[in-house]
Amino acid sequence: MIATTAVAPLRIGVIGVGRIGRMHAELIAHQVPGATLAAVYDAHEPSSRGVAADLRVPAAASLEELFGFDLDAVAICSSSDTHVELLIAAAEAGKAVFCEKPVSLDLAELDRALDAVQEAGVPFQIGFNRRFDPGHASVQRAVASGEIGDPHLVRISSRDPAPPPLHYVKNSGGLFLDMMIHDFDMARYVTGREVVEVFARGTVRVEPSFADAGDIDTALVTLVHDDGCLTAIDNSRRAAYGYDQRVEVFGAEGMAVSENPHAHAGAVLTAKGELRPPNPGFFLERYLPSYVREWEAFVGAVKTGTSPPVSTADARAPLVIGLAAGRSLREGRPVRVEEVT
Amino acid sequence: MIATTAVAPLRIGVIGVGRIGRMHAELIAHQVPGATLAAVYDAHEPSSRGVAADLRVPAAASLEELFGFDLDAVAICSSSDTHVELLIAAAEAGKAVFCEKPVSLDLAELDRALDAVQEAGVPFQIGFNRRFDPGHASVQRAVASGEIGDPHLVRISSRDPAPPPLHYVKNSGGLFLDMMIHDFDMARYVTGREVVEVFARGTVRVEPSFADAGDIDTALVTLVHDDGCLTAIDNSRRAAYGYDQRVEVFGAEGMAVSENPHAHAGAVLTAKGELRPPNPGFFLERYLPSYVREWEAFVGAVKTGTSPPVSTADARAPLVIGLAAGRSLREGRPVRVEEVT
Amino acid sequence: MIATTAVAPLRIGVIGVGRIGRMHAELIAHQVPGATLAAVYDAHEPSSRGVAADLRVPAAASLEELFGFDLDAVAICSSSDTHVELLIAAAEAGKAVFCEKPVSLDLAELDRALDAVQEAGVPFQIGFNRRFDPGHASVQRAVASGEIGDPHLVRISSRDPAPPPLHYVKNSGGLFLDMMIHDFDMARYVTGREVVEVFARGTVRVEPSFADAGDIDTALVTLVHDDGCLTAIDNSRRAAYGYDQRVEVFGAEGMAVSENPHAHAGAVLTAKGELRPPNPGFFLERYLPSYVREWEAFVGAVKTGTSPPVSTADARAPLVIGLAAGRSLREGRPVRVEEVT
Amino acid sequence: MIATTAVAPLRIGVIGVGRIGRMHAELIAHQVPGATLAAVYDAHEPSSRGVAADLRVPAAASLEELFGFDLDAVAICSSSDTHVELLIAAAEAGKAVFCEKPVSLDLAELDRALDAVQEAGVPFQIGFNRRFDPGHASVQRAVASGEIGDPHLVRISSRDPAPPPLHYVKNSGGLFLDMMIHDFDMARYVTGREVVEVFARGTVRVEPSFADAGDIDTALVTLVHDDGCLTAIDNSRRAAYGYDQRVEVFGAEGMAVSENPHAHAGAVLTAKGELRPPNPGFFLERYLPSYVREWEAFVGAVKTGTSPPVSTADARAPLVIGLAAGRSLREGRPVRVEEVT
Repeated sequence: MIATTAVAPLRIGVIGVGRIGRMHAELIAHQVPGATLAAVYDAHEPSSRGVAADLRVPAAASLEELFGFDLDAVAICSSSDTHVELLIAAAEAGKAVFCEKPVSLDLAELDRALDAVQEAGVPFQIGFNRRFDPGHASVQRAVASGEIGDPHLVRISSRDPAPPPLHYVKNSGGLFLDMMIHDFDMARYVTGREVVEVFARGTVRVEPSFADAGDIDTALVTLVHDDGCLTAIDNSRRAAYGYDQRVEVFGAEGMAVSENPHAHAGAVLTAKGELRPPNPGFFLERYLPSYVREWEAFVGAVKTGTSPPVSTADARAPLVIGLAAGRSLREGRPVRVEEVT
Repeated sequence: MIATTAVAPLRIGVIGVGRIGRMHAELIAHQVPGATLAAVYDAHEPSSRGVAADLRVPAAASLEELFGFDLDAVAICSSSDTHVELLIAAAEAGKAVFCEKPVSLDLAELDRALDAVQEAGVPFQIGFNRRFDPGHASVQRAVASGEIGDPHLVRISSRDPAPPPLHYVKNSGGLFLDMMIHDFDMARYVTGREVVEVFARGTVRVEPSFADAGDIDTALVTLVHDDGCLTAIDNSRRAAYGYDQRVEVFGAEGMAVSENPHAHAGAVLTAKGELRPPNPGFFLERYLPSYVREWEAFVGAVKTGTSPPVSTADARAPLVIGLAAGRSLREGRPVRVEEVT
Repeated sequence: MIATTAVAPLRIGVIGVGRIGRMHAELIAHQVPGATLAAVYDAHEPSSRGVAADLRVPAAASLEELFGFDLDAVAICSSSDTHVELLIAAAEAGKAVFCEKPVSLDLAELDRALDAVQEAGVPFQIGFNRRFDPGHASVQRAVASGEIGDPHLVRISSRDPAPPPLHYVKNSGGLFLDMMIHDFDMARYVTGREVVEVFARGTVRVEPSFADAGDIDTALVTLVHDDGCLTAIDNSRRAAYGYDQRVEVFGAEGMAVSENPHAHAGAVLTAKGELRPPNPGFFLERYLPSYVREWEAFVGAVKTGTSPPVSTADARAPLVIGLAAGRSLREGRPVRVEEVT
Repeated sequence: MIATTAVAPLRIGVIGVGRIGRMHAELIAHQVPGATLAAVYDAHEPSSRGVAADLRVPAAASLEELFGFDLDAVAICSSSDTHVELLIAAAEAGKAVFCEKPVSLDLAELDRALDAVQEAGVPFQIGFNRRFDPGHASVQRAVASGEIGDPHLVRISSRDPAPPPLHYVKNSGGLFLDMMIHDFDMARYVTGREVVEVFARGTVRVEPSFADAGDIDTALVTLVHDDGCLTAIDNSRRAAYGYDQRVEVFGAEGMAVSENPHAHAGAVLTAKGELRPPNPGFFLERYLPSYVREWEAFVGAVKTGTSPPVSTADARAPLVIGLAAGRSLREGRPVRVEEVT
């Protein structure tokens, strides 16, 4: 019996099939061993029907209908402001839940959702996919294995190829909660240490309209971890040379780095020098392997009854750090994380 | 009508769904815009049925049934010794044909098949996928654009991570026709020049049983092109550090290279030095993007009525070079290509 | 007459021939075109005589005797606490002066010395040699030329292979004035912008005895420049993988980086991965070309009557930033540079 | 006594102070521990006197006078056609001899000179400096230590930034004896195996006037070693992107490579891609560290009474290979080395 259950594919329903949700649905349908796409649901019915037709699965007309498809798990990929209610509904329905980040931009709301998950005891994983990037993961392994000793200094750079449209920016929660939140997660992930203090400086250098939206497009943040490790994170909304994503941990016995992959390993050498291609485009291209591996981890954990590797605590901590960063920027001083918890 | 035809997906049937054929079928089904997998056929019925079920397409019970599925094109991916008859059958049925390499290890047989293709006037593309590797293609572009001037010297290294089993070796045609044939194609592709002379040296260094099969596992070949350009190709059946595939063209105004991509862009620096991960595994992993781009090129050409980019001439020339290499090895002297044509 | 003067070598006397002074003396003697080592002087007479013998030049028994050797210029390379008086003496003697950094750890003393230089109108260059490193200089050029647009974010890492002895630490002025002062200079040099605010965090992670000396061995500092550009500088007193010196400027149109050179361009690839050698040893090895080019710049400027490229302002600003960093660390808040000026 | 002898510097006289000889004289004078430049001699007296004045050593008016300066060793750096007689004279005078390559372009003459050295029993080292390049030496070490297993395939590329003047070419012995001779030595050095067969192809692609001089400017040579290892060497007289010097050994357990160092470790990334500087200039710049290490090895060997590391056999073998390459080119067939010995 158990053996049979073990080999049956995990039936997953995807909620929200916009850009990121459609990608998750395709990955589950075609590239994740041990999983099957059972159905999709999107409040915008034409999207739902289009993706369902392409992937040859049913389109549910409602959340209730979706849950009815004998699902083992749901993937919440709809717009951020719907995550809390969907999480609670999925938890109450007893489904394992994968949820795209963020759960919420509001700490009380996030806690309400995560409490429901906790209470229901359902497996939960938050979509910090970059943890599954092979390069970044190699940095984490080098720290966790002790190979480079205790972490002393961390450098993280995340720079997008182009800024999002202004209407997106206005509802995004701002650079710290929308973009740098991945880096706050990365700092915790690679060091294995909590953050206790945040100092943030940010400016508008890329796109003046960000100022009108009360946001910044360029920032540099210092994190102090609970063991004294120091992390520098910089973000920019526009890198002319393409998507730039680097992580580096310097420790007592060495350094582990995750650099940018090139689009390909070709180069042209002339009297002007050696020219290599720019970085690959945006995150769907750069991080595709991480999304596949993220699903493999989730499916593996649910099937074996172990805890998925990116937990409710991991969903909460980066939001708190991001709120502290916002306060630091506004008040011009270092902010203790406990001030905003 | 024409407009409708133009936007309708190209209906492709796959013949042979072993390792490489199954990969082609999956790519057509999921990753090639403008194409659809219409059906599959394999002489080994369980394979056919298994792949068909996984990809949710019909399994044809015979070639005739396959052609009946309203196909625009077929992909011939069965074992090499069946290619000639299948090519002739597909050509006579008026289908566009994609054929895995080699068409045949016998020059007369290859000519018979290509003559049938020519006569039928159907679009044809041979599966030298490495031409579509982004790195290798960047080398070809640097030459074709004149950026590095006329080619003077070419270096190509192809080294497999592990030798194939002996039973495979025995029917493979030998290292020159089975493995280095890709590099003969590459030498013509990146320089844009025909080969006129071949000098080959080869030995057994990796696996003594290759000698029993009358084959070699290590070789170094010099090609002279019709404009005097000189190419060195080396092959080994086993590289301890992983799949090694490099191409370099040195020209009057510069050099273009395609190096090995790493498995990821991470590194660990300690007192011992800087350690990067080995090369990615075998060809399905290394060359996946090239297979996708190969299909995009074929589908685009068939749909627009232009000639597919890897022609019957490209299917024939590397075989001739390979036969000359074999003779050079046996006779211990440089062999003119015209001697074996 | 003038032509003759122009081609005569610049006669330089070196004051202080410990490790760094001896290196300067050797460079002047053998590797700097247009310069000649006229004599050396060291308060420790045996040092003076030893170096003089090796380099086949006279050893002066006193400062007065040194100045008497028909010098055009002096290089002040003695211990830091002697720089102010020597600078004033050299300026009053009308010599062009090259002075190792720092002029002084005390701002009033530094101003006293620089005022004397200013008043005497003698050419002056401070020994921030890293500006002449070919890699770092290429970063500055990419900014100054506009190639990468206005600078938005700067990352600088400086990590020594091993901490200095404790007795050195105690008199060094501390990490900010002894070590990071080079990076404060670098931040000004590559951006071309003044610093207006400093936020510093530092800890003892490498060597507990630093705490006894009231110093730190690990630090992360945020600088805000007058145009809003943000700089992150990290320092460590011990990098297990060797001397680590990197500079990166991210701008509106691109990024310029100066990475670590390897000891050589060899690598070994095995099943474990690709191993490259560690970074070259300490600063004399890493920065040798920068010292040669520093002297070429000084000699060229003095001979042509132009201003040497690293000025009295460049000698002063990094000290001020360093003092602000110290205050920031002590007071746990960002400090405006004007608070310490 | 013995101790005293051991610590006394080795007194070296330099014969021939043109470009390469002057460099050797400067290195001995300033950068080689344990050695001292005793005197210089050049048949062209003004050269001799100029270098002597710059380096503050005596200029000998004749060979006899030079030997009279209580020399331990001589460095023969004059034009190639004088090497045989000078070697014999130095050997007969009982001096340790360092001789720039080639001893002679004529095998009988070379044997006459080396016989004299052998008979006299004096220490001898031939100037194949590239063996002392840190990168190339790391390749040799990886082979000799067994780290990469038995060598199977070797790739060597040597490409000059610009062709020499025609009058030089005419007396150079041709590309194989003038330029590729370094690579013949390298092939023996990194593999530790003798060469038994040579196949050469060469053309004029760079500079048509080479054809008038009966020479080629572009070549590709296959070497077969006595254990079956295969080596490909390519040469060009002009690389648009700068001096190109690479060595790679592929073995049963891995690969060791020595790549080109860049002029510096800076890069600029823009929308066009990542641009790195060209290779450093010509051989004096690229190989300076190898010349210093070459002298350290010679001085160390002479002082300790051990055999210098590049022997008379190493002086002879590359000439033989080069003569075989010439015959292969003329006769259009592989040539056994024993045919020309």
